[in-house]
This record gives sequence, structure tokens and C-alpha cells, in this order.
Amino acid sequence: MEIENTFKQWKKQCLNKMDLSKKGSVDEDIAHIVRALNDAENYFTTSSCSGRIILIDGISDCQDVQKQNCSWLFVTHQQCQKTDVVSGLERSCGDAVFKFEPFVLHVQCRRLEDAQLLHNVAINSGFRNSGITVGKKGKIIMAVRSTHCLEVPLSHKGQVLVSEDYIEFLVEVANQKMVENLRRIERFYECLQSSLQAEDPQCKNTDVTEEKSVYRRRRKKMLGSPADSCQDNKDPTTSEEDDGLDYGVNLFT
Amino acid sequence: MEIENTFKQWKKQCLNKMDLSKKGSVDEDIAHIVRALNDAENYFTTSSCSGRIILIDGISDCQDVQKQNCSWLFVTHQQCQKTDVVSGLERSCGDAVFKFEPFVLHVQCRRLEDAQLLHNVAINSGFRNSGITVGKKGKIIMAVRSTHCLEVPLSHKGQVLVSEDYIEFLVEVANQKMVENLRRIERFYECLQSSLQAEDPQCKNTDVTEEKSVYRRRRKKMLGSPADSCQDNKDPTTSEEDDGLDYGVNLFT
Repeated sequence: MEIENTFKQWKKQCLNKMDLSKKGSVDEDIAHIVRALNDAENYFTTSSCSGRIILIDGISDCQDVQKQNCSWLFVTHQQCQKTDVVSGLERSCGDAVFKFEPFVLHVQCRRLEDAQLLHNVAINSGFRNSGITVGKKGKIIMAVRSTHCLEVPLSHKGQVLVSEDYIEFLVEVANQKMVENLRRIERFYECLQSSLQAEDPQCKNTDVTEEKSVYRRRRKKMLGSPADSCQDNKDPTTSEEDDGLDYGVNLFT
Repeated sequence: MEIENTFKQWKKQCLNKMDLSKKGSVDEDIAHIVRALNDAENYFTTSSCSGRIILIDGISDCQDVQKQNCSWLFVTHQQCQKTDVVSGLERSCGDAVFKFEPFVLHVQCRRLEDAQLLHNVAINSGFRNSGITVGKKGKIIMAVRSTHCLEVPLSHKGQVLVSEDYIEFLVEVANQKMVENLRRIERFYECLQSSLQAEDPQCKNTDVTEEKSVYRRRRKKMLGSPADSCQDNKDPTTSEEDDGLDYGVNLFT
């Protein structure tokens, strides 16, 4: 009962804050996901971003990547155009970096099995770097994450190092990633709805022809190139993905 | 007892396989970490990569990013040189992409508290995207992950889109990331040793002056730019990082 009340208190506190900062605080493309989770008994969201394309200016020759003060030259949660980047770069004084960052979501869960269910949804939707955190006070967070990204240095000490043709190509690549990102967000929402409604407890890839289930086939990771010496000795009969992520496991039976 | 025996069996099976593929299967820069974990009672590694700089050739205009067949033009687990990239690009027929990928490690853990301890080590070492997976058979995996990366398209349909000066700059940036990556690997190892020896159960950032502890101060995430509308309403008194990751929590007290 104690954890129950604690979770309820945490949720109430967090959602009250959200009411105060509601104006434009949740990205439009994921508002439905955030709403579905906050309406559900066993979850609430703590941070989110639908995905974005950004141009940031870092300090040149600063070795300490943690302390870099970056200024934001451009940001969008939709697609961008070449002119956005070109005009952003005109304002660059340091090392400008162009980035695509996908959907990110942090959800606090009531119980570990709730986190596992959500983890299942995330992995099946293509967010393959998702993971669970368990804290000292029993706080359980499921983080939706993906490797789907771009990170491209474009200037050094304010001097642009690439052509406008390259920028045009880069923008096209980033926009394609944004399209794919939105597709995965929709998939996440559908899978989430199914799981929450418990009509299809194990959200399977029933109607996704272009994407194989990570649970039904062992996906060859790019770690396994012939030229590569990285260790990879997962048991092929119970691959990490196949075995890992169905919800509802009880660790203590 | 059942989980105990199962874990022992899993470990034995996995390490036996590793003996067979020992030649060059574990990257040199993390051999000490892999050894320390496999020697410890409550852990064994299932996959690892010390980090790498790669040039891969993808199929042009292929929208389905999951099914892309990529050929490997170049790969190294150390630093690279401009000539590596230039000669790799000469062999590109499609869309070549230059990538830096940091240290990745998957560790199977005996119990959830073991995973939490290791998660603590990973976060404190700078691997901030680390997370836990809990599987249906009680299999617990802790994945060490980082956002520290580069992903740079360099050619389209075999045509190189950037100058050699740009490639030289890019190589420098990638090599700096590799240096930072190795520094974090060493930090991980030190922190791991402390934690395993239980001399310093909560591995604190005692001698890292250039990096603030993620647990002692709430680190401002880059999600919170003035121009950005991403939701971020974590409770400032118990931030996700501060509260999240000390080992030893018992979820069921």
C-alpha cells in the first residue's frame, strides 16, 4: 500500500506541474501518447520530445564536451529547409553541428511489470535503445530511446566547411529521418493503445510488413561485420531480444 | 534457488561459447572490463564493443532504413586517418555514411540489484543512455549506452559530396570523440572495481573535476532550451538522475 500511495502522490505532483506549464509544453506530434499514458492508472510521463532537427554552435577546440556552452542557431520539430540551415550557419562563431534527434520519452511506472509492458511497446515500435531505470525510492522509469540520428559538424571557428549542395542533401536525409520517426511514433501509439486495452497483451507486428519483429527473429546487429572483432555471443536460441522483453514477468516466482 | 541455478547455467553456457571464440573476439580496450565482469559472481557479458569509427555504404534512395544492406568500407576501434576515409569513399557506390559509435556493453545480471549497481557505474562514467531490460524468463540485462556519436553522410549514389579538408576536420572530431570514449571506459573500469570490491558501494565522482556528478546536481539537459517546447517536468527536488540510480533498492519493502 505504501508504494501505491507513493506512486499516486508522485503522479499527482507531476501532473499538477504539467497543468501549470501546459502552454506549448508537450510537442504536438506526441500529445496523444502523453495523454494516453497520463490517463492510464500505472503511468505518467516526466519528459518528452517528439524529435527534432537542430543546429547548435559549440565552442571551437573545447575538449571538454560536457561543459560546452552551446547556442541554438535553429530548431524544429518538423521538417526543415536548406535556407534554415544556411541562415543559421551565418550566425555561427564556433563549431556548428547539425543534428537529428528522434522521439524521446521518459515514463514513470507503478510497477516493474508496467515498465516491461511499455518497454515491449517501445522495442516493437523500433525504439531499440529503450531501457528501464530502478531508483532507490522504488521509482521506476522507462526511457524510450533510439539510435536513429544524425550528428554532422558543419563549421569550424565560424567558417562553414561544406557546400550548399551538401547542406541541401543533408536536409533531405534529416527530413527522411523525421518522416521515419513520425511513422514509429504512430506505431508506438497503436501498440500502446492495444497493450493498455489488454486486447492484444503482447503487441505483435501483425500489420507491419516492412519491419520484422525483434522478438520473432534474431536481428543481425551491425556489430557482426566480418571485419569487426566485437564480441557478440548471445545464445542464438534465446536471443537478448527474443527473450528480453515480454511484459508480465515475475522475477520472484 | 531456481533462479540461482538458472543464472549459473546461463553463465556457464555463455562463457563456454566465449572460450571457443576467444581469438580476437573481445576488443582490446575493454578486455579488462569484460574479464572483471565475467570473474564476478553476479554478472557475465553477452555483447560488447569498445567503440569504433566506421564508413559504411548504404543503398541510395532506400527509404526502408531497416532493410538496408550496407557494405563496410572501413572500420577501426582506434583513431583513424584522412587517407582511410578517402580511400574508403573511392569504393562507395551508394550513400556512404561516416560514423563514430561509442562503447557498448550488454551484461546479464543475477538480480535486479546487481543491474542497478552496474547501472550506477555506467551513469557515473558518462554512459547516460544506459538501461535495464527484464525478460520473461527472469533474464536481466544491463545495457551500457551513450549518446556520444557522429553520423555524417558523405556521398550520394557513389559521388563524394565533401572536400578533403572537410574529411580531415571530421577525422579530427571523430578521433577526439574516441579519446573521450576511452577516458570514459577507464572511468567505468575504476568505478566498477570500486563497486565490485564494495569498498565504495556508491561510486561517487570523487576525483573527476571536469565532470559533475549526475546524482549530486541536477544536470540541465539540452532538452530545455528557450526555443524548445519539449516537455520536461521532472520534480527538481528528486530529479530522475538524483533519485534514479543508487543500487540496492528493494522494490518490495
